[in-house]
Amino acid sequence: MTGAADLFLLLAVIIAASKTGGSLAARIGQPAVFGELAMGIILGPTVLGLQSWPVFAAPAIHETVAALAQLGMIFLMFLAGLETDLAAMLRVGLVAVVGAVGGVILPVLAGYWVSRTFGYGLYESWFIGVVLAATSVSITAQTLIELGQLRSLEGTAILAAAVVDDVLGLLALAAVVAMAPSGSGAEPGIWVGLVRVAAFFGAVALVGWVGVERVAHLALRLPVREGLFAFGAVVALFFAWLAEAWGGVAAITGSYVAGVLFSQSSHRHQLEERFHAVSYGFLVPVFFISVGLDADARAIGDGWIFGITIAVVAILTKFLGAGLGAKIGGFQWLQAWRFGIGMISRGEVALIVANIGLAAGVIGASVFTIMVLMTLVTTLATPVLLRLVFRGAGIPGASGRAPV
Amino acid sequence: MTGAADLFLLLAVIIAASKTGGSLAARIGQPAVFGELAMGIILGPTVLGLQSWPVFAAPAIHETVAALAQLGMIFLMFLAGLETDLAAMLRVGLVAVVGAVGGVILPVLAGYWVSRTFGYGLYESWFIGVVLAATSVSITAQTLIELGQLRSLEGTAILAAAVVDDVLGLLALAAVVAMAPSGSGAEPGIWVGLVRVAAFFGAVALVGWVGVERVAHLALRLPVREGLFAFGAVVALFFAWLAEAWGGVAAITGSYVAGVLFSQSSHRHQLEERFHAVSYGFLVPVFFISVGLDADARAIGDGWIFGITIAVVAILTKFLGAGLGAKIGGFQWLQAWRFGIGMISRGEVALIVANIGLAAGVIGASVFTIMVLMTLVTTLATPVLLRLVFRGAGIPGASGRAPV
Repeated sequence: MTGAADLFLLLAVIIAASKTGGSLAARIGQPAVFGELAMGIILGPTVLGLQSWPVFAAPAIHETVAALAQLGMIFLMFLAGLETDLAAMLRVGLVAVVGAVGGVILPVLAGYWVSRTFGYGLYESWFIGVVLAATSVSITAQTLIELGQLRSLEGTAILAAAVVDDVLGLLALAAVVAMAPSGSGAEPGIWVGLVRVAAFFGAVALVGWVGVERVAHLALRLPVREGLFAFGAVVALFFAWLAEAWGGVAAITGSYVAGVLFSQSSHRHQLEERFHAVSYGFLVPVFFISVGLDADARAIGDGWIFGITIAVVAILTKFLGAGLGAKIGGFQWLQAWRFGIGMISRGEVALIVANIGLAAGVIGASVFTIMVLMTLVTTLATPVLLRLVFRGAGIPGASGRAPV
Repeated sequence: MTGAADLFLLLAVIIAASKTGGSLAARIGQPAVFGELAMGIILGPTVLGLQSWPVFAAPAIHETVAALAQLGMIFLMFLAGLETDLAAMLRVGLVAVVGAVGGVILPVLAGYWVSRTFGYGLYESWFIGVVLAATSVSITAQTLIELGQLRSLEGTAILAAAVVDDVLGLLALAAVVAMAPSGSGAEPGIWVGLVRVAAFFGAVALVGWVGVERVAHLALRLPVREGLFAFGAVVALFFAWLAEAWGGVAAITGSYVAGVLFSQSSHRHQLEERFHAVSYGFLVPVFFISVGLDADARAIGDGWIFGITIAVVAILTKFLGAGLGAKIGGFQWLQAWRFGIGMISRGEVALIVANIGLAAGVIGASVFTIMVLMTLVTTLATPVLLRLVFRGAGIPGASGRAPV
């Protein structure tokens, strides 16, 4: 009667497939996100072609699924912001920052250089470099928990560096988005873009830091259900819009910043619980599967050699860049290599960046799919390699809080 | 860049408006849902005409908001199912059942009769009657909590009766939907519809009761994030689809039944927490505002006299039907009238039913708006009247759990 029954079935299939894929991956010792992406690829045009099945063919249903996936991105990045622990990050200090910087610069430059060598355009090549930049906090953390190393010195540094890496990756994305050839008007240079980003961050921090805690208190005392969560969602969505409307800053940057603001709030835990539920139980599975639905392995065509090259480059440059950075920052060699390995895994952020590039028409379907497969390869490699370098290590924080 | 920034802003505005409306209503002693609906009417074509503003004019955005509202319905009804306490309902027993039956039969018959008298068609009149049938559990409970009467004898009976009422209302809806003049094929009679409904309930109960608890255990132990919540969402969505695909049973009936199955599960509380968050913090505000956006007070035209009549009929027949039923079931007169007053408030279910009728083209925009205003009037009247009849009553359960 409501005309939305097909949507309900499609969402049920998507969420079930996502969680099934995640479970299967975990059963064979891989991070769940690997299985979720793989399941998306199986459901997508590469194998099953779910979208073209008659029952799911209505355009309105596709648009709704795409919108839910985008809301998943926004909520996920808000959650990533929420989980940003500025204090812990500051304690690990130098090694994390230098390691993160090394682990961003090398992949971006190498990604750009390799792409140019393979004949890709200037802007597309920078975009590919930026996709290679961002380590995934969640995949790194999940692997460390499985190894009981979340609270080791290396573990703490990796988590802290992953946060720095996130911010650096978002800054790089903001820069590359700001210098995008837009459809109308003059094309601003990279410096204008960076100033814009800095202005956005500065203004938001100034306004947000003063007001968020007070309004959050108020929202919590409102005589409505889930007032605090609703307030968080409103701020996340509003900042996402503001970031984009401000001109050139990605929407996810906005919701990430909103999350960071709330990470300083005394209500952080309550928000985290709720955003974790709505994200991982409902919207993020749609996002993960939707990535696979958009990735057509057939579209790679003769891009396989570039794909393999870029995956190897993604692994080696992150390992070397982050490892050498950590060594310079003060780690011993073994610690530094453990750190470098822990930073290899890419995940949500890389997929989000690639998704933005695809939506903006900056990268084509072939490169997008290569980026997704690159994420799969790094995601697959990280736990295996981490297990190798942490072999024989004690368990300093066996009771580490599992983000499950 | 993502092209969805306008959607983010629109959702931020909708959620903020919904919670602001709810808070304002609560401040003047009214249930939050009243304010949320009123805010929707203000944002809608009656006053501000939000939908036609340039920034929100893209059809894809409208479709997504409508889809989110429908997901809100599905989740809300799953939650209502989850909160169904079969044991408590059975304890209060006869009085609740007889009271609920009386409180359903009288409004349905009176609604039908009044509508026919005003010249409405046979099917539309039955639909109007069914809209008048369902008491809102949440509004009743919230009012009782404010009065500290949630755990009084009358309070327990009202809550139990509200559940029976929900089931009766859904059965009535299923019957009226099943006898709907469909676009193609033969029109099945009401008895075929009822058999279908019974078959759906029976089959689902048989399959679900056996399997749900086991699979829920499994989902909770899966190495994925929010496995249980995702499983609940999958079942809610799948049952919603199944109910509709089965032929003639409303999608919300399916998700309600799914919720009832899980209400018997040991994981009920965990599910309740998460569905409460995603529903009240995100999707249900979109649903409430969306109801207002669809209601155009200008569309009532010369239906004002019918509107006022139907609102008075809705209040009187529920009060008399439920009150007399409770007296027959064993209550004293004062208890019976308190019970009758407590059953007056309509809410989500009435709006959902009206929404289904509007989407199916069974009731027009004018009748839909009258139904929304009827809900507003009953919602407004209930707390005021309850406060009157409970004046001087002791507070037997002052520590009643607040569903906030």
